[in-house]
Formats: sequence, C-alpha cells, structure tokens
Amino acid sequence: MLSKNQIKRIQSLARKKGRRDEGCFIAEGNKLVEDTRAAFECDTLLATHAWIAAHPHFLSEQLVQEVTELEMAKVSQLTTPTEVLAVYRIPRYRLDIEMLKRELVLALDTVQDPGNLGTIVRLADWFGIRHIVCSPETADLYNPKVVQATMGALARVKVYYTSLAEFLATMNRSAVYGTFLDGNDIYRTPLSGTGVIVMGNEGNGISLELEPYIGNRLYIPNYPVGQPTSESLNVAVAAAITCAEFRRRQTE
Amino acid sequence: MLSKNQIKRIQSLARKKGRRDEGCFIAEGNKLVEDTRAAFECDTLLATHAWIAAHPHFLSEQLVQEVTELEMAKVSQLTTPTEVLAVYRIPRYRLDIEMLKRELVLALDTVQDPGNLGTIVRLADWFGIRHIVCSPETADLYNPKVVQATMGALARVKVYYTSLAEFLATMNRSAVYGTFLDGNDIYRTPLSGTGVIVMGNEGNGISLELEPYIGNRLYIPNYPVGQPTSESLNVAVAAAITCAEFRRRQTE
Repeated sequence: MLSKNQIKRIQSLARKKGRRDEGCFIAEGNKLVEDTRAAFECDTLLATHAWIAAHPHFLSEQLVQEVTELEMAKVSQLTTPTEVLAVYRIPRYRLDIEMLKRELVLALDTVQDPGNLGTIVRLADWFGIRHIVCSPETADLYNPKVVQATMGALARVKVYYTSLAEFLATMNRSAVYGTFLDGNDIYRTPLSGTGVIVMGNEGNGISLELEPYIGNRLYIPNYPVGQPTSESLNVAVAAAITCAEFRRRQTE
Repeated sequence: MLSKNQIKRIQSLARKKGRRDEGCFIAEGNKLVEDTRAAFECDTLLATHAWIAAHPHFLSEQLVQEVTELEMAKVSQLTTPTEVLAVYRIPRYRLDIEMLKRELVLALDTVQDPGNLGTIVRLADWFGIRHIVCSPETADLYNPKVVQATMGALARVKVYYTSLAEFLATMNRSAVYGTFLDGNDIYRTPLSGTGVIVMGNEGNGISLELEPYIGNRLYIPNYPVGQPTSESLNVAVAAAITCAEFRRRQTE
C-alpha cells in the first residue's frame, strides 16, 4: 500500500525539480529494471504481486514494496504501466579529464529532445563510448522519457553535465571533432581512436563559442553529392554515422 | 473565418480514418510548407494575417484562407501552433518494380514509431534513396507527427504501402539486404549500388516470413567486438549507418 506522500514523491520524479529535490529518478519495466539494478543504488522498488511471484530472488531485498496495479498506474509515466518500477539514486560522477583523454568521448551541445538523447546514449553504448559530456542545457538524462529510450544503456554510459567550453578547453584542439554542414568529408579525414566528438543542437548545430576548440570539422556527405536534399540529418542519426565511422577505422 | 465543419474536417486529419475518408493530410509551419508545396496538390492553405502579409506571392493563390491565431490553435497538431498550415491531397504512387530494380530502395517491415519513420524518410532523402516500400502495418507517413519529423523530405521520397513478401518476391534474392543481430559484418560484405535494404520492427526485427527473400544478412558490429552492450540499435540509427555505408562504397 502506497501512502499519498509516496505517490506524490514518485510522481514528482517526472519533473526536473522533483528529481533535484529528491536526488532520485525512476526506471520502469522488467527488462529495464533488470538491466539497471546493478548499476544504481536502489531507493525503492515497486512491484505488483504477479511480478514478485515471478521474481523470487528479489524477495530478500528489503526495498521491494508490493503495490496494486491501480497504485502502479498512479506513479507510472508509461501509457501502459508495467509491473515493476525502480526508484534509483542519481549518481554523481566526477569528470576525470586525464582519463577522458585516453577515451573516445561524445560531447552534446544542447541536444534538447529527450528521444534524441536516449537514442544517443544507446548508440554510444553500442560503440563502446563510455562517457558523454553534455552542456547544462542538454535534455536531462534522468527524465523518464530519456531513461526509457536508453533501453538500459544508461547503466553502462556515464553522462556528465558541465560547461562544454571549459571542458573542451582542457583538450588538445587536434583531438576535438565536430560535425558541420561545411566540414570536410568524414571518409577522407583521418580519425583517431581517442578524442572528443561534439554534436550540436537540433536546430542550430554547434554553438559559435565552441568552434574555436574544434580542430576537425567533419561532414557526412549526402548522395549524390550536390543533389538537393534535406538540409541536415537528425542529430542522433549524425552521431550514429560518425561514431560508426570512428569505430570502423579502428578495426580496419 | 473557419466554419465548424472546416475545423472538424481538419482536426479529423490527425487520425488515420479521417485521412482515409478525406484523402488529405496536413503539414504545418513556414519551412515545411515552403518545402512541400510544389510536391503536393494543395486543398487548402490556412494562414494568419501576419504570415500572408509576409508572403505576398501566396496572395494570388485562391486556396489561401486567412485565419485568426485562435482558429489556427484549434486545428494545429503542434504544441506551439504556427502561422501556416497546408491541407494536401494524399498522392497515390504506383509501384514500378522494373524502375525500383535500378535503384537503392528501403523496405520497412512494420516500423511502428512515427518519429522513427519520419527520421528514416529524412535520412533516405539525404542519401538519395527516393523510394521506401513499407508493410501495411508500418506507421502512416501522413500521420502529422511523421510529416513533421521528415522535415520536408516527404516531398522528395516516395513511400509505398504494400505486402513486403509480395514485393520482395519480385526481386532477385541476391539484391535483397537485411540487418540481423547474427548477420555478417557489413564492413566485410560486398554492397551493391542497387537493391533493397530491409529494416525490421523496433521490438521484433525482421519478420520470419521475409527471411527467405533476403540474400544478404548484415550486421553493424559493436565496439569492441564481444563487449557487453545494448542488445540492438534503434531502427532509424541502424538504417542510417547502413545507408551511409552503401553510399560510401559507391563513392569509394
């Protein structure tokens, strides 16, 4: 049985202010909870009777609280509420610049759509990119829409929010890449196995203040070259093609 | 001034039944309308006074109807209604198999998310893919969410709905590609400049009944190979990486 206060508290986690006040976020669904429970500190796990019966190994955990389907519907952010909802503590990762210099890192300059951010975290995971540094204006990783769209990848990819200008200033300019509509053909540009790939905002691309830090301007060629076409690619699509190409080069 | 019946009719175009009954769909926003008006037969163009004043070349068109911002808000599907909304006739494209055999074509096997479909149409346009053949269960191109997500690309890409089994049966098996989690490394597989690339459903991938028609099973390798990672890529992301690789080969 959930108290009114509990319901109110969990509902508040759908909003950024609620998450900041509580220091928690939610993840819903059997698959997502299974994929993420080892990665985050669990505050509460709400589950229906049927789910608990099917997952006896959870019984020993003190944090499991049985709820009715009606109660679950009240706190769920999904159109079709699932049988299990985890409330996790938001982790605090420290930006370790020296470590990041030895990795391939994504930097997101105000990617605003939650679906795009979730998709980017998921593809970063696919391509073994373990760190994403975001401008403070980028969508919040712990927004329930983003959490769901990552399909569990947020358990393996660390996402940081910080000033990108300050972050990029610590990097060697030659190790920073960005995609631009007037950049150089990515297929004809040397790509390194380490460095930072900057992806820009959905409407405005990479902000002017970051350009001085970017030593390599990349462009994903359209086909056939010169043909009238869409003016740009979706940011998650551009990130996907760029990350795939970096990794292809490394295994060539 | 919009009549109640006009408002009801335009609102009905947000639903598939309404679009089927009326044979029309809507596109909203200055950029989208500019990009699509030459490609579709316009039934009605609703615009605010400010928009009409800023676009005097539209004045000669009999189909332009001035509406107030309040009226626009009633018929708009956007969170922030824009100043112009076009009602277009849904075009009827005929599937020309012989012509398609000379092209690179995408086939979508029940891609259900409107955002994914819109993103795929947009990236197809970028990569000069002019034809997308969809199973009847795929999201409807003329759903307002899809129309908006294509960013105007639906003016240049023809989308067909038909039985994929029947369509693929007309193709040479060696010219049909599909992405599978147990396929062959796409970077180590010969790719042709013509043929059909089949992309599967978000949850279930390519359906079993289509597999016999697919001569080339492709896989986008994760990195590093063998590392635990997300179980799959988002379908639009997988389509993007696949199309980019086909086109890269052609320009190598």
